[in-house]
Amino acid sequence: MASSLLSRQLVLSLQQNLRLTAPGCRYVSKAAAKTQMEFEYDGPSMKTEVPGPRSKVLNHTNVGAINFFCNYEESRGNYLVDVDGNRMLDYTHLLHPYWSSAFVNRPALGIMPPENFPEKLAESLLSVAPSGMSRVQTMACGSCSNENAYKAMFIWYRNKERGHNIPSDEDMSSCMINQNPGCPDLSILSFMGGFHGRTMGCLATTHSKAIHKLDVPSFDWPIAPFPKLKYPLEEFTRENAQEEARCLEEVEDLIVQWRQKGRPVAGIVIEPIQAEGGDNHATPDFFKKLRNIARKHGSAFHLDEVQTGGGATGKFWAHEHWGMDDPADIVSFSKKMLTGGFYHKDELQADKAYRIFNTWMGDPSKNLFLAEVLNVIRRENLLEEVTRSGKTLLQGLYQLQDQYPNLLSSARGQGTFCAIDIRDDATRNSIILKARDKGVLLGGCGERSIRFRPALVFKEYHVHMFLNVFSDVLAEHN
Amino acid sequence: MASSLLSRQLVLSLQQNLRLTAPGCRYVSKAAAKTQMEFEYDGPSMKTEVPGPRSKVLNHTNVGAINFFCNYEESRGNYLVDVDGNRMLDYTHLLHPYWSSAFVNRPALGIMPPENFPEKLAESLLSVAPSGMSRVQTMACGSCSNENAYKAMFIWYRNKERGHNIPSDEDMSSCMINQNPGCPDLSILSFMGGFHGRTMGCLATTHSKAIHKLDVPSFDWPIAPFPKLKYPLEEFTRENAQEEARCLEEVEDLIVQWRQKGRPVAGIVIEPIQAEGGDNHATPDFFKKLRNIARKHGSAFHLDEVQTGGGATGKFWAHEHWGMDDPADIVSFSKKMLTGGFYHKDELQADKAYRIFNTWMGDPSKNLFLAEVLNVIRRENLLEEVTRSGKTLLQGLYQLQDQYPNLLSSARGQGTFCAIDIRDDATRNSIILKARDKGVLLGGCGERSIRFRPALVFKEYHVHMFLNVFSDVLAEHN
Repeated sequence: MASSLLSRQLVLSLQQNLRLTAPGCRYVSKAAAKTQMEFEYDGPSMKTEVPGPRSKVLNHTNVGAINFFCNYEESRGNYLVDVDGNRMLDYTHLLHPYWSSAFVNRPALGIMPPENFPEKLAESLLSVAPSGMSRVQTMACGSCSNENAYKAMFIWYRNKERGHNIPSDEDMSSCMINQNPGCPDLSILSFMGGFHGRTMGCLATTHSKAIHKLDVPSFDWPIAPFPKLKYPLEEFTRENAQEEARCLEEVEDLIVQWRQKGRPVAGIVIEPIQAEGGDNHATPDFFKKLRNIARKHGSAFHLDEVQTGGGATGKFWAHEHWGMDDPADIVSFSKKMLTGGFYHKDELQADKAYRIFNTWMGDPSKNLFLAEVLNVIRRENLLEEVTRSGKTLLQGLYQLQDQYPNLLSSARGQGTFCAIDIRDDATRNSIILKARDKGVLLGGCGERSIRFRPALVFKEYHVHMFLNVFSDVLAEHN
Repeated sequence: MASSLLSRQLVLSLQQNLRLTAPGCRYVSKAAAKTQMEFEYDGPSMKTEVPGPRSKVLNHTNVGAINFFCNYEESRGNYLVDVDGNRMLDYTHLLHPYWSSAFVNRPALGIMPPENFPEKLAESLLSVAPSGMSRVQTMACGSCSNENAYKAMFIWYRNKERGHNIPSDEDMSSCMINQNPGCPDLSILSFMGGFHGRTMGCLATTHSKAIHKLDVPSFDWPIAPFPKLKYPLEEFTRENAQEEARCLEEVEDLIVQWRQKGRPVAGIVIEPIQAEGGDNHATPDFFKKLRNIARKHGSAFHLDEVQTGGGATGKFWAHEHWGMDDPADIVSFSKKMLTGGFYHKDELQADKAYRIFNTWMGDPSKNLFLAEVLNVIRRENLLEEVTRSGKTLLQGLYQLQDQYPNLLSSARGQGTFCAIDIRDDATRNSIILKARDKGVLLGGCGERSIRFRPALVFKEYHVHMFLNVFSDVLAEHN
């Protein structure tokens, strides 16, 4: 049979070229091993209603669009088999875009997730859910995560304004043509220096570098100053507290102004440490007060941990350093988490299917990887390792800063998530290039900072190796 | 060594739990096999300047942000090895987010792509580039693809307005606070019934269902009517031509109106077949004239082939049915292509690094898969297969439509990308459920259509099997 042949050819060529057996391939590896096996079924075969009892049991995730759960091991050729053993001729191919049917499954998580998806979510993302959050929405990348988090906040805010979740006819018709009240003039408050991604919603809240934003239409949304603190924070507590108070006052002013303008602030988005914008820190006190301001004005509070999440600060989430039981309404992530997405409180759950949605909604293979990564982090106590290496790194940076006061300033960090300012942009770039020539990869951030972002397995001896090279490079620039 | 141990544990646990050896893992499989092998290098080792000669040769892709190409086979632990053999202590981990360093590489394609990336791009995406386009930008999903395509059109349009690509100081400062002229009031013209994704830029051009757009702030962008044609198209040529002329006239009016409003149309986006909006077709003549209108008014022309691309219409791209040498300035894709992205003409190339950018920019493993998929499509002549099956399917739908004139109407399609209208929404949904109970998975689209989206290996005998079941279900609803 042609399709049987096809599947065998695919397996062989995959194995040869990629040395990869993807999880959830439609049985291709076994089909190839058993050469007498017919690849396809003869026809449909229904055992239960759809969704069947097993699909119903599994369907406790937060996507109302799910039809049923699939057994991708048993699905073959043009037939999709669900977890209740129902075998269906698949005429919707595009809805769960498997290519060449027998080939690589990239499931449409929103509507037909694989059977082990809820379990793998529990083992991976949900096992590290931030305090107060038991729901997670996966997405393909950091930008999509923030875009959808903003949408969740807008939907929540409008339902709150309505007092219920039933849109008016005017809402329904006006939204189709991008107009009020269906597409309301709501806003997200962000901070100067923040970075939240490059798609158009995110980009309206990104304010780190002009090149990211230039020539792209945007929204008239409020932008607050992020505190410009002096480091080490503990040496300048009084000045820093004043600066933070100034910024918080400005936040409240902006919320009031934008409400008066008819563009109420549905949500506030902020990074626990402004990364792309130059590794700008603020104190736990600042974030606690900001969270309270959001609560007071009825705005959702969104922590963007795309850069800070995953352990580099010595805690799994940077916001854990603040010791809050209710740190936020939404926490978005990506990068180190291998998949994008956001955690949210129950009330931020969209009220209907397809409101927060995407064909792929991430990639379940990344959750499998993440579950393993989390096991290693726990087994190897990697967060303690990060704390230890980070302390050594920061101590070393302080020493170098004392040694080269004209060259270095403002060493700062949490865990190995560290940075230091260089005299000027040109010197910074020269130092990065010189270090690279000596075999050390560094990155820049902000106007004249160097940021350190080693892996979680960066040990103290790596820190010493780095400090030696860095010291040599600095000597050349003094 | 702890890190050596770590890597072996990861390999074992990965192999056991996932039966997966990811391509480009940092040598973990070989390290595990050779138990005496030290996992990490002793220190950096530099052989050439960076980027070295080999990186420079490879760097003919369209991302100015690329630092150098990486040899992920040789990279181990905290060391990144480039294609010129330079071994660098990796302090930028976050820039190419590998987790736990020795583990799964998910390269940051924009800055440090793997060595075989240009070759795999050539074998996969570039081997099926639309006419007139030799450049492709990969992205993680369909929404990101369209968002970035819009950004590329805005950047191109503004540089055209300027007459050069040097932004003014005012451009640079105003864009940081979302204001004109840096964030200009440009628009994208879209069509009622179109679907282009759910992130905020895309969503402003999506007009298929209210639930997608409700409560999300949007842009004041022009929306043109998409022709409402009578099927079969060839039986109603005169009425259809009139309807298309009406829509094209409206497009020109809107372009003029929005220019007068101070929101010039930088680009026009359209699907070759409106999919989510109800499988609405238009004639090649319509698209040719629309493309000319875009040219005449200086707007970029963007074909969204996220749903139609990849072969389901019987040609690799649906727009190939129009027989145009210069069909568009941008063609975006995702879904069947396994990765998102967009092709574009040379002049739509962003002029500076980081303007069209994303940390992951897709996932290179998907390109490997796609290269294999394309081989199978060619070897098995799957596009001919689709044409054959599609003809049989459409013929069958015509017959059923004659048999059940009160139930069915407007059978239409290209290849197996077919649809038919049902009497009303309730009957449509009942038919879909009944078909599912008999083991055939169908999907709805538009207000009362059923769409057919089988896999490329859907043969004529599958069509007959389907038509039998469908006929039974229809008999129950007559």
